[in-house]
Order: sequence, then structure tokens, then C-alpha cells
Amino acid sequence: MTTLINRRITLAARPVGFPRVSDFHLEYSPLPLAAVGEVLVRLIYLSLDPYMRGRMNSAESCARSVAIGEVMPGAAVALVLEPNGSQLRAGDLVEGVLGWQEYAVAPGRELRKIDSVLAPISAALGVLGLPGLTGYFGLLDIGDPQAGETVVVSGAAGAVGMVVGQIAKIRGSRVVGVAGSDAKISWLLDELGFDAAFDDQASAAFEGNLKKLCPDGVDVYFDNVGGVLTDAILGRINTGARIIVGGQTSQHNLEAPELGPRWLGSLIVKEAKVQGFLVSTYAERFPAAREQLTQWLRGGKLKYREDVAQGIEAAPQAFIGMLKGTSLGQQLVQISEQLAGD
Amino acid sequence: MTTLINRRITLAARPVGFPRVSDFHLEYSPLPLAAVGEVLVRLIYLSLDPYMRGRMNSAESCARSVAIGEVMPGAAVALVLEPNGSQLRAGDLVEGVLGWQEYAVAPGRELRKIDSVLAPISAALGVLGLPGLTGYFGLLDIGDPQAGETVVVSGAAGAVGMVVGQIAKIRGSRVVGVAGSDAKISWLLDELGFDAAFDDQASAAFEGNLKKLCPDGVDVYFDNVGGVLTDAILGRINTGARIIVGGQTSQHNLEAPELGPRWLGSLIVKEAKVQGFLVSTYAERFPAAREQLTQWLRGGKLKYREDVAQGIEAAPQAFIGMLKGTSLGQQLVQISEQLAGD
Repeated sequence: MTTLINRRITLAARPVGFPRVSDFHLEYSPLPLAAVGEVLVRLIYLSLDPYMRGRMNSAESCARSVAIGEVMPGAAVALVLEPNGSQLRAGDLVEGVLGWQEYAVAPGRELRKIDSVLAPISAALGVLGLPGLTGYFGLLDIGDPQAGETVVVSGAAGAVGMVVGQIAKIRGSRVVGVAGSDAKISWLLDELGFDAAFDDQASAAFEGNLKKLCPDGVDVYFDNVGGVLTDAILGRINTGARIIVGGQTSQHNLEAPELGPRWLGSLIVKEAKVQGFLVSTYAERFPAAREQLTQWLRGGKLKYREDVAQGIEAAPQAFIGMLKGTSLGQQLVQISEQLAGD
Repeated sequence: MTTLINRRITLAARPVGFPRVSDFHLEYSPLPLAAVGEVLVRLIYLSLDPYMRGRMNSAESCARSVAIGEVMPGAAVALVLEPNGSQLRAGDLVEGVLGWQEYAVAPGRELRKIDSVLAPISAALGVLGLPGLTGYFGLLDIGDPQAGETVVVSGAAGAVGMVVGQIAKIRGSRVVGVAGSDAKISWLLDELGFDAAFDDQASAAFEGNLKKLCPDGVDVYFDNVGGVLTDAILGRINTGARIIVGGQTSQHNLEAPELGPRWLGSLIVKEAKVQGFLVSTYAERFPAAREQLTQWLRGGKLKYREDVAQGIEAAPQAFIGMLKGTSLGQQLVQISEQLAGD
């Protein structure tokens, strides 16, 4: 190997409100040493996802808080350099939680080998990765949308939302997306085949939009955003509605907690359910779900877009952009070339 | 019959905040006329329940709003005077939605014959009536409490709450009740066998009480009250918690809607479910549930208390007292003597 340096991004400070680039630290460290059973890998793609913002908070508010000075967590696709007695081989492509860095070591059993013939390898972080699985299990297991029902998804142009909307279409539901820019809305309508979409920046228009675009009310709501948007959608739910809480991005970057109307009473009248979940609960069913998602992907029923920043040093800015809604689709960082030798 | 007068209570004005006696009107009207297939009955016990407060609001805020001048709705136990060709007989005791009045007519199929040998007839309005069934289905079908789990119930000394807590005990759960007076708390602990109980008037002590009385967190919460109490309990839920929304009495009598913290994010982290329901959904299973409740009642596993006001004219004041929490157990009004002739 020609380099013995591992560049990595650690948490420098706990952000108040939106993170700033100065909350991150680009650190030069020696190449990590693999213990027995640990595999040394070189990262190719790193995924940046909204949940990471929560991890930047203190341990009191987040069970899996990142410590100051610790490498930021994140899923990545990587190339195996040293399999170190695991069942993997040098040159294998793997996916795992490897962090914001150029090289990583991880136990072999925590790495999943991926097949670059089935789909582009970056899909293992998006539509075939945790975001895709989050959309799949949340929508199908908790929401169980039926043909003809109205499904609303917020954060619809994000990594989870785009999968949710397309699976709801496959199920025969009427799908309404909520997203944060004209470009996103056009993409949902023109490329992904959503039935309707509206802008989540214009909160004054929520009620009118929902009335117009969900004339028969809302049967299933997959919430990635929360806040005033969710308040408005709860005002339009039908009897027996299912609300899946996948994320609450509107609440991540507030300088002080936001108050909202109390709406538990409407859950009684509408006999409705609100359920939060972590995709890890469904781990045993990941292989079957990935097979189904891959089939849809190859059959053209599931499309996706990626927003790819270049180089580990670009990760903080790309992450902030993703939180602010400037990226479209899955936010990735290309850390190295897939096929470049060492 | 010696009287041709039916005294009844109608809605005089829509209350703002807590209802006042002047929001009700005591009306003298002729005995109602039964059409073919309708049964004339004389009420014995009328039940007063928190849901009625919601019905007093305008149609915009409540789907089944009571109109000004309309008789207040309510379940009652009554004596059949004129069966009018239905399958009932004069002298039968029945239960049905008969309203705040001394006499009523109703289609025979909407009246349920009750057996005064199995249990006191007033139980048909409480532990064997809609409040008991609400506790039964909400707790067992949505909450599904397990032995050793911690179940918290608010409004614990009310008609629904007392049933919830006792069924949770039968299930082997650890039961913590929240109620609004020392007398109620003593009753829950000393008579009903709750494991712990605390006062819902002392909101500053909620966090400390929950920490002390629910050392292992909260697995199931049956919410009859809402508001700041529910906020505090949500802060103590365990992974996989089930929150059943049966009522929101703290929100019924506010002059302006109350705001509260947004907690959907905690549902994600805790993989928790919040579900509202109407007991009518379970109507097909009422007979089996009543059989089980009757068995528990006769076996001494299910106890109850009633607070009985006397005479239709006492209903408004008794209703207001129930809303303010001064009654203990099921609030009833005795409209006439069970066995008095006409």
C-alpha cells in the first residue's frame, strides 16, 4: 500500500441548531490495525443520513450518542484489503457500518458481501440498504396500504421517502408526496409516478393542498419530517388511519424544542394508530426484503437518485446540505474509486 | 300510568371550558309516542360519562355533536313498559342509549335485555357496559399486557380506569394508577389491589413519582386523561411500549387548545405504538367479553364502585362533578326505582 494515512471525520462539537462545518474535525490518523477476525477495508461510498444528526446530541438526549472526538458513524460500501482469516476475500465488496473515514476495520461477521452484478454497488446504501429497508418494513408492516387508499409520505424525495412512495404505488395506492423544492416535486411526479406532490416549505398552504390533493382523506402517512406538516396531515386522516414514524427531520435542528397542538383525541375519533420503529427490528427479514427490492429495481418499478459528493473532506458540507434539503435522493460521498488499486 | 309527563335534559348552550348547570335545560314534555317496532321504556339508571362532554361541542369539532335543544345522549338501564310487538316483554329490564330523560322510545333491536340475577342491573352501565368493554378491549387487544410488565392507567378510579387496572392485575402485570384524590388513591391501593398509585393533581411531582413507582419503565399506558400527565409518562416508556388512547379528559374543558411538547421522535427510539379506538368497533365480540367480565365480577376479581345521584334534575350537577373528578367510580343517576309500579 502506498498510504499509511487514514483521513477521518470526528465530532468536534455538539451542534446547537443546524450543524456547522466547524462541528466536525478532519483528522489524519495511522491506518487502523485489524485484530484477529477483523477485516481491513477501504471505503468507496459513504452514506449520509438524517439519523446521524440525532447521534450528535448529548448522551442524555440520545442513547447512541457519538462522543466528542469519536469518528462519525455511517454505513459504507468498501473494498476488502485484508480479510484476516474471515470468510471474505481480498477484493470483495462489502457493506457495513464503517464510519466517516477512508479506511476501517470491522469484524467479518458485521460486513455483508454485496454483488456488483445485481445492482450498482452504491444501491447497497440506498434502495437496497437501510433507507430502502426502512421504507419497505415501515410502509408494508405498519402501514399495510391497500389498493385505492391514499398514502402520504413526507421527505418524499429523500432516501427513505422515494422508496415508500414507489412501493405504495406498486401496492395500488394513491400516493401524495411532500418535498422541499420544485425540482424534487417534478422528479416525484414525472419520474417516480407519484399521483400528486406539494412543497413542504409553504406551511400556510398545507391545509389547502391536503384538501385538494387528498380529497378522500389520508389512510396511511409515512412521516419522515414531523412538525407543522404532520399536524396538518393528522387533520385529514380517515378512520383506521396508520401513521408510521420513520423520522422527524424538522425537529433535529431546532435551537429549542418546539411545541405543537395536542392531537391524541383525534386518534380516538379516527381509531388511528401512530407507530415508531427502528429498522433493525426486522433484521431477520432483511434478506427476503432485499430480494424483493432488487427484483423491483431490476424490473424498473423502483427508481432512485443519488447525490454524490467527492472525497471524505466533503462529507461535513454534504451532510449539512442534506439536512437543509438541498440534496435530491440518497446523499453519498465517494471516498475512493471502486476499482483503483492500492 | 299516572303520569303523562316526561322530564328530560336538553343542551341549552355550548359550554366554553367546564360546563355550567345553565348549559342544560330541564324540559317537561309529553310521554314519547312509540312507532311500530319501537319500545316504550321507563329509565331506572342513567350513566354519565366523559365522552358526553365532547358531544356538547359544535359539529365542526365533533362528528356526533348534540344540537342545541336536543336531549343529552347517554346509556341507561330501563324497564320495558310497552314492548309494541318487539321480542321484549313488559317488565323486562333493558340497556340502551336512551338519553337524559325519564321515559324513552327506542327500536327493540337497539335494546339489550339484561339479567338481574347475574349482577346488579346498574353494572350493565359500568363494569359490564361500555366503560367496562372499553377497558377490556383497549387493554387486551391494543395493550396486550404481559405478566411482569408495568401497566400505567390514568383516570384510574373512573369507570374505565378501574376495569383496566384490575384486568392488568389479572394478567399478572404490575399496575400503577393515577387518580385525582387521596380517597381515590386509597381505594385503588386498598380495595382494588393496585401495586402503586399517585395523584394527578401534582404535576410537579410526576417525574419523581414515575421514577419511583415505575422503576423498570412503562410497558403499557392506558390513557384516559392526556395533557402533561401523558407527556411525563411518555418520558418513561420502554422499548416496544403500547399506549392506548381511551380518553383525553384533561383536554375537554379547556377554554383554548393546549400546546405540548412534540414527542413523535421518542416513538421511533422506543419503537412504540400509540393507538386510539372506539369500543363500538368490537361490537361483535361484546357478548364474549361480557361473559368474561361477568365471570371475573362473580369471582370477586373485578370490583367496582358507583357514585349515584338522585333524580333526572340532578344529572347536570352530577355530570359537572364527574368531569371535575369529585365522583369515585361509575357516575350514575337514579331516575326511578327499579321495582316501583306505574
